[in-house]
Amino acid sequence: MTTGLQLRSLIKKSGELELSLAKVEVPEPGPDQVVVKVEASPINPSDLGLLLGPADMASAQASGSGDSVKVTAKVPANALPFLAARLDQSMAVGNEGAGTVVRAGASDEAQALLGKTVSMVGGSMYAQYVVRKARDCQPLPAGTTAAEGASWFVNPLTALGMTETMKREGHKALVHTAAASNLGQMLNKICLEDGIGLVNIVRSPAQARILKDIGAKHVVDSSKPSFQDDLVQALVETGATIAFDAIGGGKLAGQILTAMEIAINKSAKEYSRYGSSVHKQVYVYGGLNTGPIEIVRNFGQAWGVGGWLLTPFLQKIGRPEQTRLRERVVNSLKTTFKSHYTKTISLPEVLDLKNIAAYNKRATGEKFLINPNKA
Amino acid sequence: MTTGLQLRSLIKKSGELELSLAKVEVPEPGPDQVVVKVEASPINPSDLGLLLGPADMASAQASGSGDSVKVTAKVPANALPFLAARLDQSMAVGNEGAGTVVRAGASDEAQALLGKTVSMVGGSMYAQYVVRKARDCQPLPAGTTAAEGASWFVNPLTALGMTETMKREGHKALVHTAAASNLGQMLNKICLEDGIGLVNIVRSPAQARILKDIGAKHVVDSSKPSFQDDLVQALVETGATIAFDAIGGGKLAGQILTAMEIAINKSAKEYSRYGSSVHKQVYVYGGLNTGPIEIVRNFGQAWGVGGWLLTPFLQKIGRPEQTRLRERVVNSLKTTFKSHYTKTISLPEVLDLKNIAAYNKRATGEKFLINPNKA
Repeated sequence: MTTGLQLRSLIKKSGELELSLAKVEVPEPGPDQVVVKVEASPINPSDLGLLLGPADMASAQASGSGDSVKVTAKVPANALPFLAARLDQSMAVGNEGAGTVVRAGASDEAQALLGKTVSMVGGSMYAQYVVRKARDCQPLPAGTTAAEGASWFVNPLTALGMTETMKREGHKALVHTAAASNLGQMLNKICLEDGIGLVNIVRSPAQARILKDIGAKHVVDSSKPSFQDDLVQALVETGATIAFDAIGGGKLAGQILTAMEIAINKSAKEYSRYGSSVHKQVYVYGGLNTGPIEIVRNFGQAWGVGGWLLTPFLQKIGRPEQTRLRERVVNSLKTTFKSHYTKTISLPEVLDLKNIAAYNKRATGEKFLINPNKA
Repeated sequence: MTTGLQLRSLIKKSGELELSLAKVEVPEPGPDQVVVKVEASPINPSDLGLLLGPADMASAQASGSGDSVKVTAKVPANALPFLAARLDQSMAVGNEGAGTVVRAGASDEAQALLGKTVSMVGGSMYAQYVVRKARDCQPLPAGTTAAEGASWFVNPLTALGMTETMKREGHKALVHTAAASNLGQMLNKICLEDGIGLVNIVRSPAQARILKDIGAKHVVDSSKPSFQDDLVQALVETGATIAFDAIGGGKLAGQILTAMEIAINKSAKEYSRYGSSVHKQVYVYGGLNTGPIEIVRNFGQAWGVGGWLLTPFLQKIGRPEQTRLRERVVNSLKTTFKSHYTKTISLPEVLDLKNIAAYNKRATGEKFLINPNKA
């Protein structure tokens, strides 16, 4: 029987996070299952919640080496009540990835995948081997590598989920923050392809340049003194009344609502004592700033701020629509949905304190890829 | 031709608020119209937005006396862009009220109202006389006075709107803040009548006592050190996952979401890395605290905070449902939907600086009634 390494995250009742590599047996596949050798899995911000939890990584300590490496860190006591359901349970990590099918069950569907490169989703991808149902594996087009197919799900479907949500909730254009990210670049390509107005908010001239270079029309830099005026102008030009915010903490969500209200009032014909009656929405889908959200209300009563997550969105749209979106992604992994990585690391390197400090910064444009079978 | 006083609010482009009493002609009613002598109209928080706008009332100055009284105050320059559509326009004020029909047009419908006490809605009620279409007047049951029928719309329909919204959005119980208010007392009576779980959040033991005395089951005092634990316990007992917040600014909206998440997790069977998948909602319908809303996110991604207003809610539910709610109110104005007033004042007294300071505090349990025809 084969064994393989699997990354584990454990938060103890005592308030300690422990990261380690477990040696786990790889079971024989059932008739409709396959064993996939994982060759590429990204570290997404959405993985960090499970991997590191709310631990204070400034307190992190490493011990051991190679496959025996272990990292521990303190979890603040006031965070423990929110973690009741995972305490003292060793959790496998990793939302999405790709690899090669190395063993297959007896069914035709499983056998057909043998030797193929496939993309997957659904957890425990930070492992050398995973077992999956054949029908949950997405074969990649010939010539597409595991590294190219690793980030096929979270970012691409989140970006498509934004434009779909915009349409379903009756808005005609959208705003995106931290817009120079991998996801933000995908969103620009989607909006250009689909003729959708997009206002990109970035935090530096360098990030603005990245987006201008891929053809973005509306790029607003929040580091400039003219930020609010620039944002209002872009909102007037696009008519955007919904925003997707990766940052969360701080004043930005409120500033976007304020700018939307000013843009709407510029064309208002009649005074409404409660502000405009146009609904203005900010969905917070990330937490690059985990501090408090601060909202100064000067935009009337037709507003909402709320969380947005991919999984409930996919449940809402249903299977046939999901399939349509997935197929769009898989057919454009080298173009619209191409991801860029800063560094490719092995499983022990995921537990390297310097690497943790780097990927835990969640810096725009910096992204790590894990190859669990890297020598 | 009769004339009558009408209260006016003017914000000038120069950044000055001016309150005054205009002497206006009362037109002859058309065939389907009536003239109503207004005898009672409340000052609701929802009227203050139009009456005082964002003016700094600490800078208010009064001049003149009697019907010629005038109040001026400064409006901060950064608020002016939001007021473009009302600048330099003298606005009549007052959302709801009641009075006696003193003249009627030729139609049967109008004639039938002559001499009757009616409730009304729709603006400019801070006036001695208003002209309304007969069908927009709600005759009150025999024995119900104008003072009893003045607050028939905003508070009662807002309270009913809360329980209706709760049901329509799939929640089974609700939370209310500033819960000892007139509106909060109505909401308690509605929930007792309809068997709906209600968590009342108040800010003092005296307010808690008011609610306990009218039979409230769950009253949580935010001034106590045990506030969060008490709130969680009440949420566990009721299963409330939606809140209506009159306060707005500060940390309360976020604290409610946090307590909801803890209450939900107490019964969770499986850890979800993004927090519970139960949607938790806070609707901010008032602005007792106009400062920033501060939200510390430690409650997963299934959450929303947003504005809630009566008018869009009524539009959403449609006419027949509106009529059903209005009839429930008018038939219980002396019981479920009874309002309490601190003081009854004349139109010139509305412009008295001491009175302005009192009603602009928006203190729970303090409410002013205007009698525009008070001698």
